[in-house]
Order: sequence, then structure tokens, then C-alpha cells
Amino acid sequence: MKTPLIDNLQYANFSPAIFEQMRAGGVDAVHVTIAYHETFREMVLNLERWNRWFEDHPDLIFKGTTAADVSLAQKTGRTAIFFGFQNPSPIEDDIGLVEICHQLGIRFMQLTYNNQSLLATGCYEDDDTGLTRMGRAVVTEMNRVGMVIDMSHSGERSTLEAIDHSTRPIAITHANPHWWHVALRNKSDAVLKALSGAGGMLGFSVYPHHLAGGSDCTLDSFCAMIAEAAARYGAEHLGIGTDLCQDQPDSIVEWMRVGRWTKGIDYGEGSASNAGFPPMPSWFNDNRDFGNIRTGLLNAGLEIAQVDGIMGGNWHRFYQQGFGPA
Amino acid sequence: MKTPLIDNLQYANFSPAIFEQMRAGGVDAVHVTIAYHETFREMVLNLERWNRWFEDHPDLIFKGTTAADVSLAQKTGRTAIFFGFQNPSPIEDDIGLVEICHQLGIRFMQLTYNNQSLLATGCYEDDDTGLTRMGRAVVTEMNRVGMVIDMSHSGERSTLEAIDHSTRPIAITHANPHWWHVALRNKSDAVLKALSGAGGMLGFSVYPHHLAGGSDCTLDSFCAMIAEAAARYGAEHLGIGTDLCQDQPDSIVEWMRVGRWTKGIDYGEGSASNAGFPPMPSWFNDNRDFGNIRTGLLNAGLEIAQVDGIMGGNWHRFYQQGFGPA
Repeated sequence: MKTPLIDNLQYANFSPAIFEQMRAGGVDAVHVTIAYHETFREMVLNLERWNRWFEDHPDLIFKGTTAADVSLAQKTGRTAIFFGFQNPSPIEDDIGLVEICHQLGIRFMQLTYNNQSLLATGCYEDDDTGLTRMGRAVVTEMNRVGMVIDMSHSGERSTLEAIDHSTRPIAITHANPHWWHVALRNKSDAVLKALSGAGGMLGFSVYPHHLAGGSDCTLDSFCAMIAEAAARYGAEHLGIGTDLCQDQPDSIVEWMRVGRWTKGIDYGEGSASNAGFPPMPSWFNDNRDFGNIRTGLLNAGLEIAQVDGIMGGNWHRFYQQGFGPA
Repeated sequence: MKTPLIDNLQYANFSPAIFEQMRAGGVDAVHVTIAYHETFREMVLNLERWNRWFEDHPDLIFKGTTAADVSLAQKTGRTAIFFGFQNPSPIEDDIGLVEICHQLGIRFMQLTYNNQSLLATGCYEDDDTGLTRMGRAVVTEMNRVGMVIDMSHSGERSTLEAIDHSTRPIAITHANPHWWHVALRNKSDAVLKALSGAGGMLGFSVYPHHLAGGSDCTLDSFCAMIAEAAARYGAEHLGIGTDLCQDQPDSIVEWMRVGRWTKGIDYGEGSASNAGFPPMPSWFNDNRDFGNIRTGLLNAGLEIAQVDGIMGGNWHRFYQQGFGPA
């Protein structure tokens, strides 16, 4: 069977039109964000919305929970949707909810979303104190049940400690190297070396604030960066995690950034003059554009097998290793 | 493989000691009650307690979700624990929670527990108005996802309407015939004929308030009643659902009966002078006593194949038919 095409992070304003685009683009699996700041009970409502989509569009999408579901998607011409949290809010202060969420299909969880959480420190805090007491316990529990630790929005020390404390490889599902574009959300060479050295995965983001040149970033620059990352960390540890936020209203970027944790406004990676979602680069607007990235990677000199891995094969292998009980 | 031994209703104060008794008694599967009056969020805490037991006692018990898990239990010398609700409280007023609960492993749900619910009328209400608008919608949804409708604590009309509206066989997991012992919780001949005529199952209860003679009921009387039921309804529609409430403090019988729906006391099947759990009949105290019932059924003149079915084979077949998507 062909190597699958996997996008390991999207938070679009999902709709049948987007599911059709996934099919048009030949996307076999997508990891979607289920929650940012939701309590457990609120998060369940988001799951219900997905259940309804699965019921109404079984010809386009289905719920994915195992690596085998990626192959099933390929065989049946559909897209497997995998669930993740960008923040541990849904587990509240209860470690028992880790397994409950895994039973509900959650396969990735970020330990923080920009801010300090009960588990670790986010990348926007002034001081990073690393994994908390509960953070260490939850990492152990996530390792046990097969929920992948995602440190995309975490601080440097917390990320290094998560890599170290976890007995299984972890992920940074959507970020780019800091050496390519300086941003609080992009990751240092030290973090990426530790991540890949421990068998972990980095998913490259095309969210403009993570790109050198922002919305004007060229495909050549993006793919040259990936080729350099392959040389530094090994192509087998690399994948795609576009962070596609297609069709979202600006109210959603505000929910992502401030939830209910402040009465003020925090612009996150934006600014008062650029508060909403920035325009996407010309070469990636939706799920039909992965062919551009593939072509760009081949033009950047990567071998076909490396490109196949980056476009989905590596995430597929990682799913096989990561989603079952320890 | 031997026909499995299945008890299709227990709400004991579960503990490792009781799990050991399940093994000593050769019980292959037990349907346990997860909730009475709990909200969805409270019910999740009860699931967490079971997850902890499964983690701590994998040599004795595991979570069952399919009929195949009964065979797995037999092969591995453990007891498969199946989940159910005795009341629809955990789905609150949200039909989407039916599928969420199914995903969490819930395989049976009573539409009512003695009182009027959002779905139907309980057996203690003065007037039974049958399935509500939401009740009909939820029965359809339960049919779709594979959650069995249980009418053990429902009124006559509601039960007949559930049998009629459901496109799949339903269950009365724990009750006895009204013609053997007059009690609000025991079922009329008309209900039992409709139930079995539609492929449904009746589980016989040994809860003393459901027994002719109460705690003094003899094994002979109990088994003669089952033989008569086999003649009337067909042995293949009969099983066991003991309603074992072993080791429960009286505070639990109060929770079962009044939850938070009244500030007063309701004695349910008991009375002010007999408020707590009644003593069990001498021939059934715990999971080690199923052999007595088996012997009693053989002595009552039932054939071995019929007895095998009643002791678990029929529930196993029903699980195969009932737990998957429509």
C-alpha cells in the first residue's frame, strides 16, 4: 500500500466542505484539536459534534483510534480523524480522566497551552519551572494508557523535562525550528535534538506566525528548512502538522488565546494591529495543497523515501508505537 | 468451549474480595450498575473507580464491551465486567450522550428507575404515560449505537411501548413474574409475553423483595417458577440477574431509592420497619452460590441445554446481538 498522507494538527472550522477537501487532497488521516480551555464536561460536547459528523458523513470521515485505522482509511477512500487536546484543561485536576479521555479516543494532549498549567509551563510565561508534581504523574499515566505527550506550546525546560521523564517518545505536533524563524512558539536546536534523540516527532507548521517571512514565506524557504532539519535530526523524526485554522472566525482565535483565564486581551503571536488569523502562504490554503509541499520537498533535494516519511509515513509509524497501552 | 456463567445484574459494594468470589464461583461475566441518580460528570467518577480496579486486579477482572470478551474471560480465567445504568440520569437531557456513554463502555440503560424520567414512567408512579418524545428518540439512538434498553424498574405501559418502539430486542435484566410474587417491580404475564415475543430477555432476580416468601423463599419455589416461565415464554429468553447488593451499607439503599429527588424518605420495596437491605435467601449469598441455582433448575426438571442457556448461554447470545452498531 502507498505511504499514507497525514496532517498531524488541524483546528479548522470543520464542515462537510472541508471533509470533501480532505478527500480531494488525498489526506488519509488528520489529528484534530478537540479542546483548548474546555472543562471535561464542555469537551464532551465537542466530541458529540464529531460523533454527529461521523454519523452524517460516513463516506468521507471516521473516527481513528489506532494506526490500523490509517490503513483502513486508505483502503476505504476516507479520512481517519484522530483526536487531541491542545491543553490539559479537560482532565481538570483528576489523573483518572487521562484514561477516560483515552477511552473516548483522545490520542494527543499538550501539557500546556502558552500559559502555566497544572502540569507544566507554557512558552509565554516568564519563568519555566518544568514539570509539576502532577505533571510528572500525568506523563507516567499518559505513557501507561497510550496518550502522546505534545509539547508544541510549552516552554523550553518543561519540554526537555517531558522528553526526559516520558518513557515513550513524545511529539511536538506543530512548530518549526527557532533557528529558521525566531518565535516563542518555535523550538530550539537543543529541544529538537533531545526530542528526536528520544525517538520523538516534530510536525512542521504552516501557521504564518511560525514561518520565516510570515504569510509571505516561500515554499522554497519552508522546504529548505525541512531539508536542513532532516540533516540535523534525521528525516524519520519529521512530519507535517499544519495548524490549519481554515474558515475560523476571529472569535475563535480569541478563545484560543484567552479562553476564560483573563478579562483582558492577549494577542499571542499576533498584535493589536494584526489580531485575527493571518493570511495563509500562497502555496498552502487547505487540504488540497499537500502536493505543493511534496513537490517542494523533492525540489529541496530530499529522497523520495524521506519525503514519503515526512508526508505521513513517519506519523503512521509513530501512531503504531504510541497509541496502545505500554 | 463450555457455556459461560453470566450474572446480568449486580450492584455490590465491589472489592477485591468480591472479585475473588467471582473467580471462586466460576462467573465469566457480570453486568454491574455504574449509576442511579448521577449526572454525566458524576458517573464518570464511577467509571474511574472501575478503571482503577481493572488496573490493580488484571488477574481477576477486565472491562467487557463485546460478546467476545465473555469468551476471552473463559479462556483467561477472569471475569468480564460489563457496564450499565439503572436510570438515564447520566445522559441528562442530551441524546448525544448516549453514544458518548456507549463509547465509554455502557451496554445497558434503564429508561426509568421507579420514578418518571425524561424518557418514560417508572413502576412506582400512579400514572404511566408511556415513552416520552425524548424517550422515543433515545430508544432509536440506543438501537443505533448498540446500547440495550432495560425496563426492569419501568411501568407496564412504558415497558410495552419500549418493546414495541425498539427495533432490537430489549431486556428486563432483574425482575420476576408478577404471577409468582405480587410486587410493583415484578412483571405481568402480558409484559413477559411481549418481551420474549420480540426476542428479549428476562433476568431472574434474587433480591428478597422480588421473591415469593421474601428472604425465606426456597430454592425449589424459585426454580419451579423459572421452569414455569420457560414453559410460558421459552427457556431461551431467560437468564439470571441476581441484583446482588452484597456488602452495601444502608446508606446505599437510601441513595438508590431517593437520590436527590426528595427531601423525604421513600422506602421503595421496603418499609419504615424494614428499611435496609433484607437478608438474602439461604441458597444465594454471593458469587460462589450459582451452583445451587444450577442444581435447583436441574431438579425442577429443565433439560441440561436449557439450564446452560439460563445460567449464561442466553445472555451471551443476547450480547452478540445487542452490543454492536445496528
